[in-house]
Amino acid sequence: MNNEKVEIFDTTLRDGEQVPGCKLDTNQKLIIAERLDMLGVDVIEAGFPVSSPGDFTSVNEIAKIVKNATVCGLTRAVKKDIEVAAQALKQAVKPRIHTGIGTSDSHIKYKFNSTREDVIIRARESVSYAKNFVDDVEFYAEDAGRTDNSFLAKICEEVIKSGATVLNIPDTTGYCLPEEYGAKIKYLKDNVKGIENVIISCHCHNDLGLATANSIAGVINGARQIECTINGIGERAGNTALEEVVMILKQHPYLNLETNINAKLLYDTSLMVREKMGMFVQPNKAIVGANAFAHSSGIHQDGVIKNRETYEIINPEEVGVTESAIVLTARSGRAALAFRAKKIGYELTKVQLDSAYNTFLQFADKQKEVIDDDIHVIMKQVSKFSKIAIA
Amino acid sequence: MNNEKVEIFDTTLRDGEQVPGCKLDTNQKLIIAERLDMLGVDVIEAGFPVSSPGDFTSVNEIAKIVKNATVCGLTRAVKKDIEVAAQALKQAVKPRIHTGIGTSDSHIKYKFNSTREDVIIRARESVSYAKNFVDDVEFYAEDAGRTDNSFLAKICEEVIKSGATVLNIPDTTGYCLPEEYGAKIKYLKDNVKGIENVIISCHCHNDLGLATANSIAGVINGARQIECTINGIGERAGNTALEEVVMILKQHPYLNLETNINAKLLYDTSLMVREKMGMFVQPNKAIVGANAFAHSSGIHQDGVIKNRETYEIINPEEVGVTESAIVLTARSGRAALAFRAKKIGYELTKVQLDSAYNTFLQFADKQKEVIDDDIHVIMKQVSKFSKIAIA
Repeated sequence: MNNEKVEIFDTTLRDGEQVPGCKLDTNQKLIIAERLDMLGVDVIEAGFPVSSPGDFTSVNEIAKIVKNATVCGLTRAVKKDIEVAAQALKQAVKPRIHTGIGTSDSHIKYKFNSTREDVIIRARESVSYAKNFVDDVEFYAEDAGRTDNSFLAKICEEVIKSGATVLNIPDTTGYCLPEEYGAKIKYLKDNVKGIENVIISCHCHNDLGLATANSIAGVINGARQIECTINGIGERAGNTALEEVVMILKQHPYLNLETNINAKLLYDTSLMVREKMGMFVQPNKAIVGANAFAHSSGIHQDGVIKNRETYEIINPEEVGVTESAIVLTARSGRAALAFRAKKIGYELTKVQLDSAYNTFLQFADKQKEVIDDDIHVIMKQVSKFSKIAIA
Repeated sequence: MNNEKVEIFDTTLRDGEQVPGCKLDTNQKLIIAERLDMLGVDVIEAGFPVSSPGDFTSVNEIAKIVKNATVCGLTRAVKKDIEVAAQALKQAVKPRIHTGIGTSDSHIKYKFNSTREDVIIRARESVSYAKNFVDDVEFYAEDAGRTDNSFLAKICEEVIKSGATVLNIPDTTGYCLPEEYGAKIKYLKDNVKGIENVIISCHCHNDLGLATANSIAGVINGARQIECTINGIGERAGNTALEEVVMILKQHPYLNLETNINAKLLYDTSLMVREKMGMFVQPNKAIVGANAFAHSSGIHQDGVIKNRETYEIINPEEVGVTESAIVLTARSGRAALAFRAKKIGYELTKVQLDSAYNTFLQFADKQKEVIDDDIHVIMKQVSKFSKIAIA
């Protein structure tokens, strides 16, 4: 069976950049945009052109330099926004306008003080208007996660008639469980006339820690685009992490879904984004965290040394990390100590190792991590005590 | 319909503490254990007593002070481990021994150089042996995520006969997708004789960013215990985050599942653990990250100011965070500026706001965040330009 392609829509420069403290200048954005293009993303959402003069310039400059990816600009369902976005995207090889409106009752009532009927009209008008400027128009149904499925299907059907090429179904508040979100996508697949001619897109937020799982549930149920950011950055608890969804599809080949991402660039891209945005990544972040491939407990270390696949499903080199670190702590076993000692020149017999391990535990109980310098000290003590030359 | 209870098994002090750099001394562990008991966790896994003298002491001391929760010690399927754990847990009000063995073909072959038959014998013997010391014996089938379901069912049935009270089904390498993991739990529910008399436990790792979703899939399919850590710390990409699963069950009442956790202590507990372990939490971490309740884009801020529920599914006070921060950046809209200006004493007319907003954008395009001091400067400039006194 041939794999089907899932498009990767990167919104690091738009949804990611609107985070407190993450603002970038145009130059920094250009560097990241070029890297995203190299990484193989299908769409780069470059900004929200009407929101500020700086953003307009950034989208405009990015549109000029990106060679492969579609370049996309965000708008509200407002003519002015769409005109400004079209202007900013003018020089893009493949421009896309991303327009839309809130569709949940909460958004319709509190945000727009409007009605469902009126929202449908505004949605259709915006898509039609955007089609005057570009062929590729993505429509977002904001807060789709909390929008009643039958109304959502209706508005989707209407905007397809107006020419939308991509339907974005955001779980804006990060509320959905994976089976709910998957069921929502399936409902649209089954109930929207013309849906076979457009791409359904997942845009999930991580407020409950479920963005990645929801996006995967989406593509399993027929969506073919995932909107995501490097390191999962974004408003509040962030967006779907690009590196996670890419590696999940790679690690589960029976899903028959693939992306265009060059995974070997994932780690470097993660470092670039954290450095430019000043937005750090916790050590226990999946795929790109400092500890993602580190093993410190004895049981685990022993297993990894015998056979990497015992505890590691991804070879770190696959994502551009050069080797799994074996970190020595009080939880480390003899095998880990022997492994690290060997790396710095000590081949130990079983008796020597037993003796060294006892000394090691005294060290390790006092400090968080035992480093190479400590191992040299331990070996000196052991050779003195055991009267055996170690070298 | 009455809610069913999901037990929260906290392993911050065992699986969490075995992380590079996270080692705690006994005193620090006692402080965290007391807090976990206050938080309302059902089980505290206090350590792996045989692994080092320091760990033995910690488990022993924790066993003495914990008033409500079960205190649990980890062992391998080895008599010595079990004896040492029993000794460490002697003074616990509710002691539990957690023993087990790898059950996937990869573990059986590479880790133990053994056979399925032999692994079943060792599993039964360990559980029986542990029952000599305590009533409450949890069995873990390590790498259950990659263990063939029929063999997993067989070993579960055997250890139930030997007296296991809890069956831990770890996705040790974090490989499973939620629907696979949920299906595995359902398979056990449907195929293991005696399963109705024991608790099935989810122990998920986050290597692909799916630990939380997998645990939730587990309890939806019949598991009634989740093993988790504060802030999701743990080996490699960490364990299931306690705060995430607790809030998911709270936010989805139709699941009819509840925990005993006092959510108002979640944020403080998160701060305590990051401070004691020196293990930082990224700003975009769900529930407990610095930005989890921060809104900075104009569209979002406007919505939150009109009605919190537009973009926020959790009231921050529910988890002990005192208020959602409205952070001003170049993505912020007029409403956010007006809101923050009002907080420091400026009531603006529409004309004043328009003028202030233009000045604000120039500030915001140059710096990452606009703070109160900047707002005062902006107001001075605006009042000068517009000849309108602002105060």
